[in-house]
Amino acid sequence: MIKLRIGIIGVGGIAQGRHIPAFLQLSDICEITALSDVNIHRARETAEKYNIPNAFEDYLDLFPEVDAVCICTPNKFHAEITIAAFNAGVHVLCEKPMALSFEECEAMVAASKQADKVLAIAYHYRFMKEAQAAKKVMDEVGLPLVVRVQALRRRKVPGWGVFTNKDLQGGGSLIDFGCHLLDLALWLMGNPKHTAVSGTTYNTLSKQPNQVNQWGRFDHETFNVDDHVTAYMKFENGASMLFETSWAANIKDDQANVSISGADGGLSVFPFELFTTKHGMLLNSEAAWLPGKEDPGVPQAKNFIDACLGIAELVVKPEEALQVSQIIDRIYESEGNSL
Amino acid sequence: MIKLRIGIIGVGGIAQGRHIPAFLQLSDICEITALSDVNIHRARETAEKYNIPNAFEDYLDLFPEVDAVCICTPNKFHAEITIAAFNAGVHVLCEKPMALSFEECEAMVAASKQADKVLAIAYHYRFMKEAQAAKKVMDEVGLPLVVRVQALRRRKVPGWGVFTNKDLQGGGSLIDFGCHLLDLALWLMGNPKHTAVSGTTYNTLSKQPNQVNQWGRFDHETFNVDDHVTAYMKFENGASMLFETSWAANIKDDQANVSISGADGGLSVFPFELFTTKHGMLLNSEAAWLPGKEDPGVPQAKNFIDACLGIAELVVKPEEALQVSQIIDRIYESEGNSL
Amino acid sequence: MIKLRIGIIGVGGIAQGRHIPAFLQLSDICEITALSDVNIHRARETAEKYNIPNAFEDYLDLFPEVDAVCICTPNKFHAEITIAAFNAGVHVLCEKPMALSFEECEAMVAASKQADKVLAIAYHYRFMKEAQAAKKVMDEVGLPLVVRVQALRRRKVPGWGVFTNKDLQGGGSLIDFGCHLLDLALWLMGNPKHTAVSGTTYNTLSKQPNQVNQWGRFDHETFNVDDHVTAYMKFENGASMLFETSWAANIKDDQANVSISGADGGLSVFPFELFTTKHGMLLNSEAAWLPGKEDPGVPQAKNFIDACLGIAELVVKPEEALQVSQIIDRIYESEGNSL
Amino acid sequence: MIKLRIGIIGVGGIAQGRHIPAFLQLSDICEITALSDVNIHRARETAEKYNIPNAFEDYLDLFPEVDAVCICTPNKFHAEITIAAFNAGVHVLCEKPMALSFEECEAMVAASKQADKVLAIAYHYRFMKEAQAAKKVMDEVGLPLVVRVQALRRRKVPGWGVFTNKDLQGGGSLIDFGCHLLDLALWLMGNPKHTAVSGTTYNTLSKQPNQVNQWGRFDHETFNVDDHVTAYMKFENGASMLFETSWAANIKDDQANVSISGADGGLSVFPFELFTTKHGMLLNSEAAWLPGKEDPGVPQAKNFIDACLGIAELVVKPEEALQVSQIIDRIYESEGNSL
Amino acid sequence: MIKLRIGIIGVGGIAQGRHIPAFLQLSDICEITALSDVNIHRARETAEKYNIPNAFEDYLDLFPEVDAVCICTPNKFHAEITIAAFNAGVHVLCEKPMALSFEECEAMVAASKQADKVLAIAYHYRFMKEAQAAKKVMDEVGLPLVVRVQALRRRKVPGWGVFTNKDLQGGGSLIDFGCHLLDLALWLMGNPKHTAVSGTTYNTLSKQPNQVNQWGRFDHETFNVDDHVTAYMKFENGASMLFETSWAANIKDDQANVSISGADGGLSVFPFELFTTKHGMLLNSEAAWLPGKEDPGVPQAKNFIDACLGIAELVVKPEEALQVSQIIDRIYESEGNSL
Amino acid sequence: MIKLRIGIIGVGGIAQGRHIPAFLQLSDICEITALSDVNIHRARETAEKYNIPNAFEDYLDLFPEVDAVCICTPNKFHAEITIAAFNAGVHVLCEKPMALSFEECEAMVAASKQADKVLAIAYHYRFMKEAQAAKKVMDEVGLPLVVRVQALRRRKVPGWGVFTNKDLQGGGSLIDFGCHLLDLALWLMGNPKHTAVSGTTYNTLSKQPNQVNQWGRFDHETFNVDDHVTAYMKFENGASMLFETSWAANIKDDQANVSISGADGGLSVFPFELFTTKHGMLLNSEAAWLPGKEDPGVPQAKNFIDACLGIAELVVKPEEALQVSQIIDRIYESEGNSL
Repeated sequence: MIKLRIGIIGVGGIAQGRHIPAFLQLSDICEITALSDVNIHRARETAEKYNIPNAFEDYLDLFPEVDAVCICTPNKFHAEITIAAFNAGVHVLCEKPMALSFEECEAMVAASKQADKVLAIAYHYRFMKEAQAAKKVMDEVGLPLVVRVQALRRRKVPGWGVFTNKDLQGGGSLIDFGCHLLDLALWLMGNPKHTAVSGTTYNTLSKQPNQVNQWGRFDHETFNVDDHVTAYMKFENGASMLFETSWAANIKDDQANVSISGADGGLSVFPFELFTTKHGMLLNSEAAWLPGKEDPGVPQAKNFIDACLGIAELVVKPEEALQVSQIIDRIYESEGNSL
Repeated sequence: MIKLRIGIIGVGGIAQGRHIPAFLQLSDICEITALSDVNIHRARETAEKYNIPNAFEDYLDLFPEVDAVCICTPNKFHAEITIAAFNAGVHVLCEKPMALSFEECEAMVAASKQADKVLAIAYHYRFMKEAQAAKKVMDEVGLPLVVRVQALRRRKVPGWGVFTNKDLQGGGSLIDFGCHLLDLALWLMGNPKHTAVSGTTYNTLSKQPNQVNQWGRFDHETFNVDDHVTAYMKFENGASMLFETSWAANIKDDQANVSISGADGGLSVFPFELFTTKHGMLLNSEAAWLPGKEDPGVPQAKNFIDACLGIAELVVKPEEALQVSQIIDRIYESEGNSL
Repeated sequence: MIKLRIGIIGVGGIAQGRHIPAFLQLSDICEITALSDVNIHRARETAEKYNIPNAFEDYLDLFPEVDAVCICTPNKFHAEITIAAFNAGVHVLCEKPMALSFEECEAMVAASKQADKVLAIAYHYRFMKEAQAAKKVMDEVGLPLVVRVQALRRRKVPGWGVFTNKDLQGGGSLIDFGCHLLDLALWLMGNPKHTAVSGTTYNTLSKQPNQVNQWGRFDHETFNVDDHVTAYMKFENGASMLFETSWAANIKDDQANVSISGADGGLSVFPFELFTTKHGMLLNSEAAWLPGKEDPGVPQAKNFIDACLGIAELVVKPEEALQVSQIIDRIYESEGNSL
Repeated sequence: MIKLRIGIIGVGGIAQGRHIPAFLQLSDICEITALSDVNIHRARETAEKYNIPNAFEDYLDLFPEVDAVCICTPNKFHAEITIAAFNAGVHVLCEKPMALSFEECEAMVAASKQADKVLAIAYHYRFMKEAQAAKKVMDEVGLPLVVRVQALRRRKVPGWGVFTNKDLQGGGSLIDFGCHLLDLALWLMGNPKHTAVSGTTYNTLSKQPNQVNQWGRFDHETFNVDDHVTAYMKFENGASMLFETSWAANIKDDQANVSISGADGGLSVFPFELFTTKHGMLLNSEAAWLPGKEDPGVPQAKNFIDACLGIAELVVKPEEALQVSQIIDRIYESEGNSL
Repeated sequence: MIKLRIGIIGVGGIAQGRHIPAFLQLSDICEITALSDVNIHRARETAEKYNIPNAFEDYLDLFPEVDAVCICTPNKFHAEITIAAFNAGVHVLCEKPMALSFEECEAMVAASKQADKVLAIAYHYRFMKEAQAAKKVMDEVGLPLVVRVQALRRRKVPGWGVFTNKDLQGGGSLIDFGCHLLDLALWLMGNPKHTAVSGTTYNTLSKQPNQVNQWGRFDHETFNVDDHVTAYMKFENGASMLFETSWAANIKDDQANVSISGADGGLSVFPFELFTTKHGMLLNSEAAWLPGKEDPGVPQAKNFIDACLGIAELVVKPEEALQVSQIIDRIYESEGNSL
Repeated sequence: MIKLRIGIIGVGGIAQGRHIPAFLQLSDICEITALSDVNIHRARETAEKYNIPNAFEDYLDLFPEVDAVCICTPNKFHAEITIAAFNAGVHVLCEKPMALSFEECEAMVAASKQADKVLAIAYHYRFMKEAQAAKKVMDEVGLPLVVRVQALRRRKVPGWGVFTNKDLQGGGSLIDFGCHLLDLALWLMGNPKHTAVSGTTYNTLSKQPNQVNQWGRFDHETFNVDDHVTAYMKFENGASMLFETSWAANIKDDQANVSISGADGGLSVFPFELFTTKHGMLLNSEAAWLPGKEDPGVPQAKNFIDACLGIAELVVKPEEALQVSQIIDRIYESEGNSL
């Protein structure tokens, strides 16, 4: 059997921590044949470490060696590289968020269609066991009425990487962390069309000097992204969403969850719990055991490869990732925001 | 010392469960001298039970016997009776919500000012020990950024009284239950001006036949109020509020809480918890003991009497109750609501 | 509407603690018109206490005053009184166990059929909220495979009444306490025919002098009933049951439960829990809320009255109580038992 | 000092996971001098891995190199190899269960006696710290009355190896897993003679297609062993045992325990707890610390070696293992079983 | 049978809350025939309430009506009344502490001996179920080495009665509360002779204005007793005691306990726990059930009556209470104390 | 930048487990240039293992190669080596306790002053995150009133090393383990002058044969140190301390803690908790997150190096360690001690 040839563009933390190990675990159906990185030394070291035959400085040189690429660069370069890949006839698995703006995202989808190549976005939360379980029991929840999304950390601004650089990343806690739970919530709801979006963004805490921060130090003066965001959405199926994300909230404990109250039942994703009615009783159910892998990167990589091979449908469709980006744009542009 | 003469108008559950016992406990500074109820039999029975000298069918007959009244009728009659009381030169403690609409509320305030008599609204959650404690530590929270309000019950539509009658009550879970936590949140924030309000109201569950309900039976066909409401607000001080209330949500447990993340710290009211930063540490504090009474009705009654006597400032000012009603109106009128 | 006239025969603990209060709560459909007790003083005191018009020494005198009787005497007299009642044309609710032996039980059923009057046995555990819930979800358990019954107390031999008197009661922990859980288990299983019964009975502990006992003192010398029993049963539907009951076990905690592992799922009755498979997941469910009354005596009394009035089917059918007694007989007679 | 020369026959999971590491830890008193396996490649790889000098395909070739063997083959070959070993003058530590049938077991014991060599069966649960502790406190339990054995797993049919092959293993959950706890219970009781055995075996769940299984996949069509077994036993000392084992039960949690209620006290083995009476009080005791090793394989190996050297008595005597096999036979043959 | 005639001297909280109810429960062996109180109105009211025939202002008038008295006055009057009672030939149960000073205590004991009447001191902690259990298992603790006594409350200075009045009570937290646990500890140890006592007393907190206090208000200016005390003692059997008591400590939770580490085992009294060694294991035991009454007042009263009747030995002997008072004196006089 | 050259004297457990790893982690500011050990083979092996250039048998040979030494020998040699190091012009970080007696300690301090070199004692508990946090919040505790120190282990006499050798170590549980918590408590209090010290020492348990011991075996006959110590201290600021340490106590659980009740608040160090008063409420606070390293050895080493370089003040000043040794001497010499 012929294996899909994979290229990795950008070999930083997310590439080495999630995508490369996942493709290596799937060595019966794919092989990583090339890497590229603007830092050619890092590219070469990584290639050597994982025994990968090719390492390039320029991603354009990588395309001929692969059938598909996994894009792991700062957000700013997602659109440009994706479109170049499609022009070269290569499938794309792109890290989230899709791109810096809705317009870029639309261009990516158009390029995908024109090239007739797969475009997947790495919203890997969907591949977690709890998320898969939640999707399966949405029939017991019925029509979603109220959706609550919390992606909250207490004083954990990332003190490394480019996370606090608006130019490279396009935003802060919302575009980096909140986007995952937002995408998950929309997917569980069935990606209904949003009819209203209102939001507020903050960076009050992170602009203060001498902040206590659990995840290392950052420069409060150059910090120019959001560290806390609230939003409210209405959808054409009548649902409404209460949304909150933060890197630096003054809260008791970190929280990352989606919970839904529907017309027939309710659920929480993390931990997975189901609230139902049966024979006149109210029941709370929890998972004694869920099928699936601990690391969501592996089923994500498998689904991408299978889609490239034409034997599976994508779990994260580009139109769905597009909606996430569109809502993020709307929140950032919401009236009264100062960021 | 002369005692304030109190009259009770409407002798149903809230009168007998909270206000009459509270005034009786304060017998050193007040006495209940009269009751009235449209059901004169109930009025007489109640008068006999508590040894109160006068019982009337018409509240107009009651005014000459009292210095102040406590209005415990269905919401629809709050404004009319309040204004009549002021015309009769009598102070008013009116049950929440203030009235059915913002316009009625404004008329009540105007009448109060014209008569130069006290107008208090019975938002008794403010007098709970945890709420008093929270108000005192707002200096450690600093500027409020994000406020979360949850007033949620699982399948507990009141199966008695007039709670599901829109004509008499003006609404359902929001005007009856959510209003308390909304008022509490606004008070803790310092009642900043709201600059945007958006909401969604539901009665999907309660309109279905054969609903499981923990609090007795109700007629799903005549049910015409909200059983679940979400809302989002922005305030001129930059804060935003995520709000949810329900009588009938598909959730795990009932929840009644306000939590705030501010620029300096955070808090939760029920249970009372404080999240602060000190010497580079992050601390969580809980109450080992809080001063105050278990029953908030007593300090509420005392504050009202003291205000009538001119020796204390009202805790719940009419302008603050007015803002609650204004926001409730805005939520009920929010675009797209079908109720 | 005409109310069913109820007579109570034997006015000891179970009559005053469960049956009389239950019938009094149902005063819209029945009235207690007579009592009898071999202790005529106790009968008269009780009649006065509850304002009941007639008190007799001889139960035969009672029959003309009533439509139905509730028999609360020691077990030895159950059969005789029941048959006399049917001869007098009176319905019978008889305390458990049905009688001292299977033969007596058969005679009771025959008399009931001949008189065409209702015969109910007071296995009130079936009317508990958890038991009702369990019965309703047996479809999710599927074919019962293994049934576990535990009715165990640690050192709690009843130190009062006639409980340790074999002549009057016919046995000890099994006939007094274990019978309830055995009946419940059989009912949940659908009362399949038993094809094998084997058991062992003990009174080792209670025959020792100076036993530590939480429920008062008893005479170890005259103690002549079982204080601990194990049994094993097979049923024609392939199920097997592991059974244990005790008044005096050396165990950690008291236990009273039935749990079932079936072909499709499993359940525990106390507390009510359900173990199921769904979409490839294993779920544990618990009750957030169960409908029904705290006191099972009230629905038991109502079901009896409704059956007498011909408007409901009995929940505890005499043939089912008969099976319980038949199995108890088989256990007591099991090879090798010394009691 | 001369070290005992050990040979390992069959180098699969149990050999590499328990026995080889245990003998290696005891390198001051023994050395592994040879391995054999029907798969000679696996034998050689394993020999190389552990630096063992000899690897054979045929176990007969191994005997000259050793003083004692540890038999780790499928159950079917236990008797044949054991007898061959004794014929070769070699001591035997044989994995549990002893053999496929009581007759084979008897032949093994006879061969052991004739050769005057040690025959030990690897019921390693007895060497666990909790089991050793329980054995020591049996004097506080007194005469055992009721013994409960639970060896239950929820949906964990082994999806690897030969566990579901009746021809090679002789049975399923009972012979593989339940036998350990049954042996432990009998040992704690003092191995009294059993006077009655009745049981029921099931494979209802595992014969259904598409079963949810936590331990990998298996073929439900070829599955021909028990996945759930209940049994009841009586003993000549008056004790009775309620026994249950399963690989695939619909239960809340896995359970592996023996608990005993005796004439003087009670105990639970896992976790170790003791229920006693003292000065008129009822006490529950738990272990703050137990002596012994975490891995029971080491004291098991040491006891075997010491017995071979004649300096210790065997903990697991062959007559005791024989009783376990006899009871297993009786359960499998119990009237009405369909397997 | 003749009943012991009991008189109560001082009818405040401790008389009505503990002693009168206890004697009333023992109506088969005693009757309360007289009360006295310096407030004759209170004496008469109380007599009427409990249907007691005689009420006096002067306790001297009471003696002729009784066989025994229970003294419930402020501590200052214990010695005087006790001695007067003995002069009148009456037995005495005196509330703790015995008296204000060791000298007074010695005079009480001397008077008791001279009159040959019973003198009991109401150290009722000894009659609690946990204390009785602890005393019984001291044989498993062996020689006591280290004894820890904690009688600590967080900010609970009694805001009523005469507790903060040094003239009437002789001290504060030590003489009122700590004395109970000190007595209990000494009794468990077997009342060995103390060879060294060193202590420190505080009232730092209670002398500050505006203290937060859970038990009402008190006047910090007139407060002149100890609110916190530490002490250290050595005993002739080699034991040492670490002692602490407080009404107003800045601690997490209230604590009232005695724990002992002995040569063979250890124990905690509240809750009752035992720490032992057995067969090389370390065990922790807790009570599943303890014999005895919830209210220690009843067995205390019974022991006093039985001692008066000469049919039982006193549990709290006057010499033991004397030692408590002697140690309290030594602590109060310890070098460097400012109180 | 020039790195400080470190020598390690004595390469046993504490050197390899704490100090060498700590200095290696600080390789940007120091390097280990030499080791010495009386066992030259162990010195050479260790040097090889960590790639350290010099290994000596005699510590005098080591001095020329280093700027500072870390002394990890048995306690008996601390003073001698420290003084020799100062004579050689080398800084000293000496393991605790400072030395065997107060006199030796004084000589060490004098030598340090004369040589003008740094003398630090490795009381590393002070560098734990909880200890640092506690020191910072002492302002909220206010004047310390009562200090409780518990350094208690249940049956854990060290069965290795020289811990039970009085000649080499100078004592047992107090000098080895209790000294840490005593030092920590004194530091938190601000090292006030002690005005009274009384103590008791035990070795009752460890002198008995066949003791159960969790930490290996020891010879009860040669055991000649304390295994349990209690003490009481008074300080010139009015505080008192209740102190207890043990290797072998009959207690429920091991405990290692310092707790303080002060005039304004209270604290516990392990876990870190704070008990305060605010706005009339009593609050309990716990750490949600504390800054600092898990391993206190690293900040301890860094503070020592920085002090040698003159850029930081020592955290553990020699005068403070001197006070610890002085108190230990006083406890060992306390009247009545038999050890």
